[in-house]
Amino acid sequence: MIKANISGIGTALGENITNAKIEKDFNLKSGIIEKTTKLQTRYFFKQDEDLEPHILKAINQALQVAKLNLNDISCIICASAINRVAIPYNAAYIHKILNANPIIQTFDINMTCLSMLRAFDIGARLLDIHKHILLVSIDIASLGLDWEKVHTAGIFGDGISAMIISQSETGGIVFSDFQTHSCGYDLCQIKAGGYLYPPQHTKDYQKLGFFEMKGKELFKLTMQVLPKFITQSLKKAKININEISYIIPHQASFSSLAHATKMLKINPEKIINIFQNHGNQIASSIPFALKELFNKNVLKSKDKIMLIGTSAGLGLGLIIWEKP
Amino acid sequence: MIKANISGIGTALGENITNAKIEKDFNLKSGIIEKTTKLQTRYFFKQDEDLEPHILKAINQALQVAKLNLNDISCIICASAINRVAIPYNAAYIHKILNANPIIQTFDINMTCLSMLRAFDIGARLLDIHKHILLVSIDIASLGLDWEKVHTAGIFGDGISAMIISQSETGGIVFSDFQTHSCGYDLCQIKAGGYLYPPQHTKDYQKLGFFEMKGKELFKLTMQVLPKFITQSLKKAKININEISYIIPHQASFSSLAHATKMLKINPEKIINIFQNHGNQIASSIPFALKELFNKNVLKSKDKIMLIGTSAGLGLGLIIWEKP
Repeated sequence: MIKANISGIGTALGENITNAKIEKDFNLKSGIIEKTTKLQTRYFFKQDEDLEPHILKAINQALQVAKLNLNDISCIICASAINRVAIPYNAAYIHKILNANPIIQTFDINMTCLSMLRAFDIGARLLDIHKHILLVSIDIASLGLDWEKVHTAGIFGDGISAMIISQSETGGIVFSDFQTHSCGYDLCQIKAGGYLYPPQHTKDYQKLGFFEMKGKELFKLTMQVLPKFITQSLKKAKININEISYIIPHQASFSSLAHATKMLKINPEKIINIFQNHGNQIASSIPFALKELFNKNVLKSKDKIMLIGTSAGLGLGLIIWEKP
Repeated sequence: MIKANISGIGTALGENITNAKIEKDFNLKSGIIEKTTKLQTRYFFKQDEDLEPHILKAINQALQVAKLNLNDISCIICASAINRVAIPYNAAYIHKILNANPIIQTFDINMTCLSMLRAFDIGARLLDIHKHILLVSIDIASLGLDWEKVHTAGIFGDGISAMIISQSETGGIVFSDFQTHSCGYDLCQIKAGGYLYPPQHTKDYQKLGFFEMKGKELFKLTMQVLPKFITQSLKKAKININEISYIIPHQASFSSLAHATKMLKINPEKIINIFQNHGNQIASSIPFALKELFNKNVLKSKDKIMLIGTSAGLGLGLIIWEKP
């Protein structure tokens, strides 16, 4: 397999929104959000905001970091958890706003919060025919939050991310694995958006657009399966946890981050944690955290980074990537 | 790259629905559907019908044809154009109803009508780590049809399809290419289903669930780009059209099938056409047509099959597959 570099990451955020503002807007008890979720602040796009300039900003930033032009890209994968519209697929929209050449291939990959991780794994396999692939996640959690359920709504933030993966001589994905624990299928859902509840034939459609989560059951299942999955993956990869320089977890929640770290006896300094000021940005979480690490300028060639996470489904995913 | 066999296809259909029945139900002029679309009959699932037994039927049929058990499958890709719900992703649902082992990986690929073609191409690249991959498309067009627009609604049919791709010693994908002509992004759409029109914040949401198509513009663009794409692909693949034994087109519409064939001077007997009694089954069209070909028992080893089509986007896709 061709080796994959992550040659550029770009991001775009909406407005910084404090807990105090939300608590005021939704008549919530002062301090309840941080108390319930440990989240201090997050960024939300405005409702009805045109996202096009933000998407282009993230993509152009990624191209700039990678020192590439759009002409160098021959495949665009949209890896958002949520579609823009039901038809056409998302990547065609990204292609359109970029006014891109028709020879640029496009398609979507979806694994909810792990969409970007899965797209990185799939994209890396396509580097035999593409020199550079653009991955994009546009995840606007704020549109589906029910503030009557603070423990669920309070953990999310919006984020648009673009990541360019490129052919490399060295480094690349040294191990990846994914699992599906669909016994947890009902624990996280947005019921609207598909054929199960077609808008034309569904009463009270409005409330089906809210994200629903059975937090306690989800946390329990995650703690049952995630640490084991990580341990088994490291064993299969024949890599000791001490050989991993940094860990980029999906920023699902503060408590799951904290618990998983503890269970695996991982040095907390190795873990990139942006949860408290970004929240769970769905599929954009991992690229945002990875950009945070890149910006620290601490990475050396041959450093091994572990990208891990969970998604609604319940899906699990892990990639060990070696910096070229 | 590992060579890919298509080791089994399974399908499931709803009730056979004649034009006469639709014309009666929707107060349409008798004969108008066939006159407008050339479609004679199609299959629709009942509104609110539980699709689970139908999905399982298609998957079990595919497993039976491939002489495999679910335990032989290590990856499930859902390649539907339309989601079941917004969260979780579709393949987690398929995993759940199969009560599948957690080590089975799952994710979705979406390229609207070309989802199955794109999933075949991607899936083939994953056969280095998976012996057998299950691809599933659940596309229920009937839920989004506006019968006030007969020329659009009249061309669709429902279909569930399952296709198993397997490691092979011989044959496999000899060429594939995809293009994106996003100047046609607005020509086919269902506006509901995503972040652009969140149900909580959108008035008159109901009507956004209908499929809309600018048929004439779409036909014009398709005829501008599709024949050229096919000609260029054959040239790149260094394969003469006479070396292709059969052509499986996406069953987009009768007129586009007829015109493309004529423009490329293809012997119509080589083309599998099930449009008149199935309609456009979205991403399930290609698997249904391919199964029709398989069931004729005419295929010989080394026969080259060309799978081609268009999708909303406008996307183009082509795979030349050699039978092992």
